[in-house]
Amino acid sequence: MDKYKQMKNNSLDTICAISTAAGSGAIAVIRLSGNDARKITEKIFYPASKSKKIFEQPANTIHFGTIRYNEKDIDEVLVSLFKSPNSYTGEDTIEISCHGSPFIQQKIIEILIDNGCRLALPGEFTQRAFLNGKMDLSQAEAVADLISSQSEIAQKIALQQMRGGFSSELANLRERLLWFISLIELELDFSEENVEFANRNELNKLVDEIITHLSNLTNSFSLGNAIKNGVPVVIAGLTNTGKSTLLNCLLNEERAIVSEIHGTTRDAIEDVVNIDGIMFRFIDTAGIRKAHDKIENLGIQITYNKIKEAAIVIFLLDISETTTKNVEILDNMLNTIDLEKQKLIVALNKIDITNKSEVSDYLLKLQSSGFQNDIIPISAKKNLNIDKLISGLLYTVNIQKLDNSQTIITNSRHYEALSKALDSMKQVKKGLITEISGDFLAQDIREALFYIGSITGNINNDEVLGTIFRNFCIGK
Amino acid sequence: MDKYKQMKNNSLDTICAISTAAGSGAIAVIRLSGNDARKITEKIFYPASKSKKIFEQPANTIHFGTIRYNEKDIDEVLVSLFKSPNSYTGEDTIEISCHGSPFIQQKIIEILIDNGCRLALPGEFTQRAFLNGKMDLSQAEAVADLISSQSEIAQKIALQQMRGGFSSELANLRERLLWFISLIELELDFSEENVEFANRNELNKLVDEIITHLSNLTNSFSLGNAIKNGVPVVIAGLTNTGKSTLLNCLLNEERAIVSEIHGTTRDAIEDVVNIDGIMFRFIDTAGIRKAHDKIENLGIQITYNKIKEAAIVIFLLDISETTTKNVEILDNMLNTIDLEKQKLIVALNKIDITNKSEVSDYLLKLQSSGFQNDIIPISAKKNLNIDKLISGLLYTVNIQKLDNSQTIITNSRHYEALSKALDSMKQVKKGLITEISGDFLAQDIREALFYIGSITGNINNDEVLGTIFRNFCIGK
Repeated sequence: MDKYKQMKNNSLDTICAISTAAGSGAIAVIRLSGNDARKITEKIFYPASKSKKIFEQPANTIHFGTIRYNEKDIDEVLVSLFKSPNSYTGEDTIEISCHGSPFIQQKIIEILIDNGCRLALPGEFTQRAFLNGKMDLSQAEAVADLISSQSEIAQKIALQQMRGGFSSELANLRERLLWFISLIELELDFSEENVEFANRNELNKLVDEIITHLSNLTNSFSLGNAIKNGVPVVIAGLTNTGKSTLLNCLLNEERAIVSEIHGTTRDAIEDVVNIDGIMFRFIDTAGIRKAHDKIENLGIQITYNKIKEAAIVIFLLDISETTTKNVEILDNMLNTIDLEKQKLIVALNKIDITNKSEVSDYLLKLQSSGFQNDIIPISAKKNLNIDKLISGLLYTVNIQKLDNSQTIITNSRHYEALSKALDSMKQVKKGLITEISGDFLAQDIREALFYIGSITGNINNDEVLGTIFRNFCIGK
Repeated sequence: MDKYKQMKNNSLDTICAISTAAGSGAIAVIRLSGNDARKITEKIFYPASKSKKIFEQPANTIHFGTIRYNEKDIDEVLVSLFKSPNSYTGEDTIEISCHGSPFIQQKIIEILIDNGCRLALPGEFTQRAFLNGKMDLSQAEAVADLISSQSEIAQKIALQQMRGGFSSELANLRERLLWFISLIELELDFSEENVEFANRNELNKLVDEIITHLSNLTNSFSLGNAIKNGVPVVIAGLTNTGKSTLLNCLLNEERAIVSEIHGTTRDAIEDVVNIDGIMFRFIDTAGIRKAHDKIENLGIQITYNKIKEAAIVIFLLDISETTTKNVEILDNMLNTIDLEKQKLIVALNKIDITNKSEVSDYLLKLQSSGFQNDIIPISAKKNLNIDKLISGLLYTVNIQKLDNSQTIITNSRHYEALSKALDSMKQVKKGLITEISGDFLAQDIREALFYIGSITGNINNDEVLGTIFRNFCIGK
């Protein structure tokens, strides 16, 4: 049996889990949810005020007392009481706030299981919230995104999605499509009369709007994915151009090994830094040259692979090299990267060892060689113009997109569904142009509706649900 | 200025901290305490039910809403409300239960600080509970012990102490001493009449009782300390007797490097295992022999040091060696350890490579050589009789002591104070025998009272307080 189906069948169980981070803290919170949450808690919780029965207390109240089992006192705790349907899961829920010793946390979980709880599966609390209609699927996914958010923008997008911003946008799209399909179906009902209820011009306009909307959403995914996982920025260049020094400079720490020896960096070194609320995933690479040994050759191969996966490539030139050589390798790099999808930032390094006029001359020479891109002269070693380089990075990520209200897609499942909906709508568009029959139009629209519906779970299948909640942390 | 005094002066501040374990979890709890806790929360918390004002809600209630600052929504949270004096600290207290992203946790702390909170020092919440008379000093210390408890017994002792079991025992001791001193002081008031209000026989009896009580408490410290930090068990023996194999066997994992080569283990390898609720800290050591190199010699020196610090020494003999050799090294070991304070368990290893009768013969021979201790024949490799060895360990720790109601001292500060009180009482005893004047008796009793009082904080000094709370985790 599919794990998700099993979970659904087990939804009568009362589940429990440690909901706070693993390890030792001042306090920890253990959460129970299900029909027996209060009954089980009553068996092991002895309120300090003896007259109190947990079952009879009002919802959203906190009670002090002792966890006791088999005549052993385990801890003095606070118990928070939530009643169905006004809880996160929609079920009766209890939160036990205990002292944060891992031993005590584990002990309380053991006692709860002894008294009829089952250990919650990852994401099972949120799954129950979904099954009980407290949130739709995209909102449930946003909970996990919110918990793993590492930057302000990721947090903002996740919170907005959790609150149903994206869901209502999708609902609006669905509504327009449903109106469309109802017109088409009306036509089909009256097909013998050969009436056109749906004005083809208006339909065309509507389809265009929906296509534009879906395109905007799918196009936002590369940005959204970068926000969620960090924008991959590869630092590439010939050996000894100062790539590792630049990485350290950007990371503000000695992360990569820096030396004067050519080919020091063999593995690709990665680290993530939050700059102005954007996560950048910087990747230092082995310098490009004819390798002297197999290991280094492997490193150079990795460099090329990393360049292909990058959103941004910072290509480092060394001012102490001849312009001819630099132009040559720059041309080579331009052939490697895909300027349609990737951004190139050229940095001319080591300006600390030359004077200003020499730098200007060098830049002029490079430009006169037919090279079009902007070049930022920097010194990684002396931290010169690194701010300009960072501005370049931020500009490239185009953060202004985030200041307006446009929805950013961060979830690959949503991206896939929206892409498929977009394909279906393009079929509709084609159908309108070629004047195919309403039957076929309706079929394509229904497909689009299916894909959009699958995002929020209006239309869902068990396999999808299983995959979604499996990726949650325990206790949520 | 002393840090503690500074804290005392700052007790008007409203403090905040992340109270759950560091890192990412489903939820995290941020705690505020102080006069402005509610006022600050009101500035940043927007309840879902808009009519609600946090300030006007009843104590011990939970409220759902949004943390918002500078027009940015940070998270949807639950806010728990506790009102002075019915809170942990005795002050107005707020707990914010947010999504467990480290980014969000940090963001909320930043916002709280922006709005007038100060980041709490380690243990500052508990310190405030102490300053506000919610608990005495030994109870406050027990909170930290409870949080760091790793075994059932450590948890039991800490919980009992936190609940004031030890405090009331000390209060009882103090009361008896105060009664004693009042009698003596009455005598001094009427000294010219040369009356003896205090019957010297009864006084003697009382002093004996108190001395016995104090001795029991101080004697319990070696056990208490072992419970708290793990009972140090050193595994020693000649090279290649199977020490590392035994360690792995006891730890149920491949922790130490095992090989057939003499002198494989050079560093002392330690690991802690919970057996039947007791923490044992097993220490594998370098085999004892004339070392072949400096590093190994250093290892052997460490072995001897570790043996001196152990509570229990498991001394391994190899059955494939001659009895003469084994008796010789056993005699040598008996000279090294202090049987008054340390326990010796002799294990005869490698019985898997001999038959039963040979093992019996070997044991008889060892015993006839005048060796008195029990010897447990084992095979570390084949896991034979390891249960008997473990029983021996548990018996040695004498866990039955913990089943009765005797208080176990686990805190070295308490041990020190009780030892000093014991010394003072021994002076009193001596004074009674040598019939010194009431003045001197009273002085010694007052000293004992001072030391006992310092444990619970009836008598305290700032330096002691500073030290105690400095060792707490943040957020408690």
